[in-house]
Amino acid sequence: MQRYGQIIKLKPDRVEEYKKLHAEVWPDVTKAIAKSNIRNYSIYLKDVMLFAYFEYHGQHFEKDMAEMAANPVIQEWWGVCKPCMIPVENREEGEWWANMEEIFHQD
Amino acid sequence: MQRYGQIIKLKPDRVEEYKKLHAEVWPDVTKAIAKSNIRNYSIYLKDVMLFAYFEYHGQHFEKDMAEMAANPVIQEWWGVCKPCMIPVENREEGEWWANMEEIFHQD
Repeated sequence: MQRYGQIIKLKPDRVEEYKKLHAEVWPDVTKAIAKSNIRNYSIYLKDVMLFAYFEYHGQHFEKDMAEMAANPVIQEWWGVCKPCMIPVENREEGEWWANMEEIFHQD
Repeated sequence: MQRYGQIIKLKPDRVEEYKKLHAEVWPDVTKAIAKSNIRNYSIYLKDVMLFAYFEYHGQHFEKDMAEMAANPVIQEWWGVCKPCMIPVENREEGEWWANMEEIFHQD
């Protein structure tokens, strides 16, 4: 299992919209997340700062993420979520959510 | 079980020191964390931004946190860690790490 921590921001005037979307997440989105071998997935908010934590239980992360990205339901979901978001300036090239470095872990 | 997400920053010139401390965390600190009923505890870093995720498996969070805070080893640990850190300006009164709101979770 591999843990991931990621960061991104919200547009101040779109915070409530993003929260509402995630309070009423589409069932097909949760199915796609599960199918991608992602477990124990949480998103946290502090003002406009978002943090995501999840655990990947598959064997082929890039492949699973590519399949999820190709799913029409996920594309539609991202189509409504992404306009609420602002990627952090210090993200790596090609990232939307910026991956963070795990500097401590205790089971 | 209750999940927590928290945010804080590092002083730019103390990032490496904080990383080194957590790469070589004192055994008595990990014992105190475990005794406080904290499990699956990760700290993530992106430049100077820190994010912590942990799961609390006890029944009395405030009491467990107070006992940990009263532990001389923890006080010594915080004595070396805290000078590396800058609390976020939008934290609640009395907070060091600022608690975030869980807006999404999927097991």
